[in-house]
Amino acid sequence: MNISTYFPIYNELTKEEQHLIDISAFERTVSKGTIVHNGDTECLGLTIVKDGQLRAYKSSDDGREITLFRLLEYDVCLFSNSCTLQSFRADVTLSAEKDTTIIVIPTHTYEQLAATSLSLVTYASEIMAAHFTDVMWLLEQIMWNSFDKRLATFLIDEVSLEGTEVLKITHEKIANHLGTAREVVTRMLKYFQTEGYVTLTRGSIEITDINKLEHLIS
Amino acid sequence: MNISTYFPIYNELTKEEQHLIDISAFERTVSKGTIVHNGDTECLGLTIVKDGQLRAYKSSDDGREITLFRLLEYDVCLFSNSCTLQSFRADVTLSAEKDTTIIVIPTHTYEQLAATSLSLVTYASEIMAAHFTDVMWLLEQIMWNSFDKRLATFLIDEVSLEGTEVLKITHEKIANHLGTAREVVTRMLKYFQTEGYVTLTRGSIEITDINKLEHLIS
Repeated sequence: MNISTYFPIYNELTKEEQHLIDISAFERTVSKGTIVHNGDTECLGLTIVKDGQLRAYKSSDDGREITLFRLLEYDVCLFSNSCTLQSFRADVTLSAEKDTTIIVIPTHTYEQLAATSLSLVTYASEIMAAHFTDVMWLLEQIMWNSFDKRLATFLIDEVSLEGTEVLKITHEKIANHLGTAREVVTRMLKYFQTEGYVTLTRGSIEITDINKLEHLIS
Repeated sequence: MNISTYFPIYNELTKEEQHLIDISAFERTVSKGTIVHNGDTECLGLTIVKDGQLRAYKSSDDGREITLFRLLEYDVCLFSNSCTLQSFRADVTLSAEKDTTIIVIPTHTYEQLAATSLSLVTYASEIMAAHFTDVMWLLEQIMWNSFDKRLATFLIDEVSLEGTEVLKITHEKIANHLGTAREVVTRMLKYFQTEGYVTLTRGSIEITDINKLEHLIS
């Protein structure tokens, strides 16, 4: 594991700080569907995606979900280290959307370093600011954007993430990403099919005219 | 101006850092309705409320609004200093809801201190985490809570903030706080009146049964 490749401020740390990371950071490979972190009570550490894809989402008490953002290769997540922030309480879950390898800088290491390293705390602030920006963007989408645009945005992102225009995803899963009910997704997808944007088959959605979808959100 | 009263980490700073704050921090008194900070382009500095009340809100391109949170005495806001965070882009506006006195630690001072002071950067991280927690709470409210509960929560908060059960606020203003249309607010308030929770008169809303409102959200 070459941590300096995945942890950009590694070279700004002292030799002692680097050594502490070297001896405590670990890799973990999880299969698709694994819950990597759950809520505010657990504290795993700073999570860096080496390979694969994580989803950060919020659940309601009755099991509804909404995706906050996805984490791809080189992305860093603070939520799995949120117990180090007294003022942060948000109960976010992280799950693997593909088989994923993460690098973890454990919380006890992070805390030890954060007590002396301005570089680390400044870096973590920037990561939190990036997460915050993503959530503010989501809030705007929910408040001011109609559902057809949100669904179109989601489908376009999926094509890009999966590298194919044939998406193997259920309506239920899309509903969980977008924080709505399955029926709402099904109804809008049927409308998209009528308009010629997509073709629906059992278990998959084929994007037949991505330009029209892009036009919808422009 | 006794800055150490309003800036809890002042005593953790070095004499030089304290001196820099002493000579650059300033007070500003603004009248109700003043925009204190607007979007990401301006950068005023770290804003501390000495007296009064600020509202942090987000606007849509077509002028709709939603309140993110309020800032009361001793509260600190980072949004007016967000240009110091490369990764934060959220275009939040801060306005005075009452005649308000703020203490500002200007951005250039903040940047100078943040380059050396771990205490300051750690403190600012906690403030950002608190803002983030408020926005996550709001997201949950919007996603999972029905509008009657959101309106009841707003009215109860207003009674507490204003210290009176007779609220001088227009339906339009409430709509801007809650990110909805005026008609939606009017319709729900009329329903609340029918149920005996409130009495509506021109220009004011009297809370006649706060227990019932509290019961609604419990």
